[in-house]
Amino acid sequence: MSQPADPSDRPGEFELIARLTDALPLAEDVVRGVGDDAAILNWPAGQQVVVTCDAQVEDSHFRRVFSAPGEIGRKALAVNLSDVAAMGARPRFALVSLILRPDVDQDWLEAVYAGIRAQAEAFGVSIIGGNIAATTGPTCLDITVIGAVPTGTALRRDGGRSGDRVYVSGHLGAGAAGLATLQEDASEAPREAVAEVRSAYRDPVPRVALGEVLRESGAVTAMMDISDGFAADLYHICDESDVGALIEEQALPLAPATQAVAEALGHSAVDWALSGGDDYQLLFAVAPEREPALAGLPPEQRQRVHPVGWLTAPEAGVRLRHADGSSEVLRRRGWDHLRGHTS
Amino acid sequence: MSQPADPSDRPGEFELIARLTDALPLAEDVVRGVGDDAAILNWPAGQQVVVTCDAQVEDSHFRRVFSAPGEIGRKALAVNLSDVAAMGARPRFALVSLILRPDVDQDWLEAVYAGIRAQAEAFGVSIIGGNIAATTGPTCLDITVIGAVPTGTALRRDGGRSGDRVYVSGHLGAGAAGLATLQEDASEAPREAVAEVRSAYRDPVPRVALGEVLRESGAVTAMMDISDGFAADLYHICDESDVGALIEEQALPLAPATQAVAEALGHSAVDWALSGGDDYQLLFAVAPEREPALAGLPPEQRQRVHPVGWLTAPEAGVRLRHADGSSEVLRRRGWDHLRGHTS
Repeated sequence: MSQPADPSDRPGEFELIARLTDALPLAEDVVRGVGDDAAILNWPAGQQVVVTCDAQVEDSHFRRVFSAPGEIGRKALAVNLSDVAAMGARPRFALVSLILRPDVDQDWLEAVYAGIRAQAEAFGVSIIGGNIAATTGPTCLDITVIGAVPTGTALRRDGGRSGDRVYVSGHLGAGAAGLATLQEDASEAPREAVAEVRSAYRDPVPRVALGEVLRESGAVTAMMDISDGFAADLYHICDESDVGALIEEQALPLAPATQAVAEALGHSAVDWALSGGDDYQLLFAVAPEREPALAGLPPEQRQRVHPVGWLTAPEAGVRLRHADGSSEVLRRRGWDHLRGHTS
Repeated sequence: MSQPADPSDRPGEFELIARLTDALPLAEDVVRGVGDDAAILNWPAGQQVVVTCDAQVEDSHFRRVFSAPGEIGRKALAVNLSDVAAMGARPRFALVSLILRPDVDQDWLEAVYAGIRAQAEAFGVSIIGGNIAATTGPTCLDITVIGAVPTGTALRRDGGRSGDRVYVSGHLGAGAAGLATLQEDASEAPREAVAEVRSAYRDPVPRVALGEVLRESGAVTAMMDISDGFAADLYHICDESDVGALIEEQALPLAPATQAVAEALGHSAVDWALSGGDDYQLLFAVAPEREPALAGLPPEQRQRVHPVGWLTAPEAGVRLRHADGSSEVLRRRGWDHLRGHTS
C-alpha cells in the first residue's frame, strides 16, 4: 500500500474516534462512555462481573477477500459475545481496541466498525470505550466484553461430573466448511449449501439467549463455547472437570449443507465437526437427574441442543465411538493460535 | 526473523498461556480467573466499575533496543493504571491480550509478561484473563484494566469550571527527554540526567495513590492523565468542560535533568513539557474555594502537585503566558497515534 505524501491529509486519531463512535447508544447504567480516560458503569447488586477479550487479526482470523467489512466487525464482537454466553451470562458492555496501519482504508474501517455497532445493538450491548493504536502490520480488532450474571450462577468449565450427558447446540463443522469453500475450488458444491456454510463462517450467531436459559434451567454442570474445535474444547472441559468422555460419532449434529460441501470438496464432514473450529456453538454437560429440565426450555432453544455423549471417569480418557461400536481415543486436535491446526 | 522448520517445535498457545499465567495471585473477589471462557468477579455494593484499554505496539510505542523487556511489560500496564488513576479510581483487575508472531522470542516474551506481573502485584491488581493471537506484524500488548470507585465520585474530564486552578503532578517533559536520549546522540548530556529521564520514559510510575487522595479531597472538579502531551490533553479538558485556560509558562514543572538534557541535545525543555507526551502525570482542576483541601494531602503527595494556571471563560481560548507577560494561543499539539506528532 502506498503511503500518502502528507500524513495530515488523513483523519487524525481523535477525528476518527469521533466519527466511529458518533451517537453510540448507551444503556442507562453507563454513567460515562467513550470520551474520558475510562468508562464508568453502575453495577447492580446481586450480579457478578463476567469479562473476556478476544482479538481478530487480519490474514490470520479474517481476510478482506473472504468477508464483507460489516461481517468482519460483526464476527469480531460475536466471538466475545459467545464467550460471555458460555458462562450463561448476559453481555452488557464492550471496549473496541483497533490496531491499524495509519493508511488504513477509511471506508473499509468505517464499515467494519458499523458491523460491530450493529451487532452490539442487536444484543443490547453498549460500546463504552476503546483505543486506536498504529501498527505497520495487519489490522487487529481486539474487543473486551463485560457481562453480568446473578451471583453464584455462572457456568464454568470445571463443574462436569462423570455420568453427565454431553450436549452441543446447533450444527458442527459449518464454519470450517464455509472457510474451505473460500480457500478451495467449490464450483462443484451445491450453491445453496455453499451460501449456508459461508454464512456460518462469516457471520456466526453467538448463543446468548440459549446460554441464559441453560443457566436458568439449573440443569447444566459445565459449559464452554466451541471456538477451537469440538475435540480440543471438550478436552478443556474434561481437563478442568477431571473427567473423561465418550462421544457417539453418529450423534454429532452435521447440517446437510456441511455434508454436501464436504462431499463436493473431498473432505470429511466429521473431521470438520471434530476439529474445524469457528463454530461458536455451546458445549455443555447436564446432570442426568436434571435432564428433564431441558424439556422446559423455550421450543426454539430446545430444538437447538443435541446430546452427543457422556462424561465418564477420568481414567477412561476421552473416546469417540463409531457407528459399528468400535471406539478410539478422540484426538486432541483443533486450532492453536500459535501452531495453527494441530493433530 | 527465521521461521523454525517445524511449528511443533514451538510451545503451543495453551502451553504458553499456562507458563505465563502460572500461579497468578488473585484478589479474594476473583471467583474465576484465567482458564475459562471469561473471568468472574464479585462486585462490592456502592462501587462503580471503571474500565479502560490501551495497546502498546512494537516499534510504535516501544522498541526492544530502547527498553528491557521487563520495562516494556511494566509500562504496558502502567499506561492503563494511569487512565484508571485519572478517574480517581483504584485499579483492581487486568486482562492481557498478546498479539504475537508465532516465532516470537520466548525468553523476551516471558520477561515482558514478568514485567506486567510485577507491576500488577505492586499495584494490587489481579491478572484475570487475556488472549493470545497470531500476527505477521509487530508485537502488540493490549491491556484492559478494571477499577473500582465509590459510586458518584469518579473524576471526569467534563467537570472543570472557569476560575478553577489548573494543576499537574510531577514533572513534565521527562518522558520525551528520555526518548530523545535514545534516538539521538546524548554523549554530551550529563550521565545522571540521562539515566533519570530514560527511567521516566522506560518505567513511568502511574499516579494511582495521588489520584485516590485527590478524589477523596473533594477539591478536584476535573482530571485526566497526560499521555499525549500537556497541551493536547489540556484541550481535552477544555473541550469537555467548555472552558478556556491560561497557563503560566514559567510555572511548568521541569526537572533539572530534563533541562540539562534539553540543553545538551539542543531541544526546548518547554516544548517537551507542552507536547512531548509519555509523561503519565495527572492534570487536574481545583475549585478555588476547595483549594485549601489540597493542604490536607499526605506530604509526599502534596509536594508532587504544582499549580500551572487557571481555567477561564471558553471565549478566552487556551493561552500560554510567557515570563514577560505576553501570551499566545497554546498550540494544540501532541501525539496523534495515526498522524504522529502534530503541530
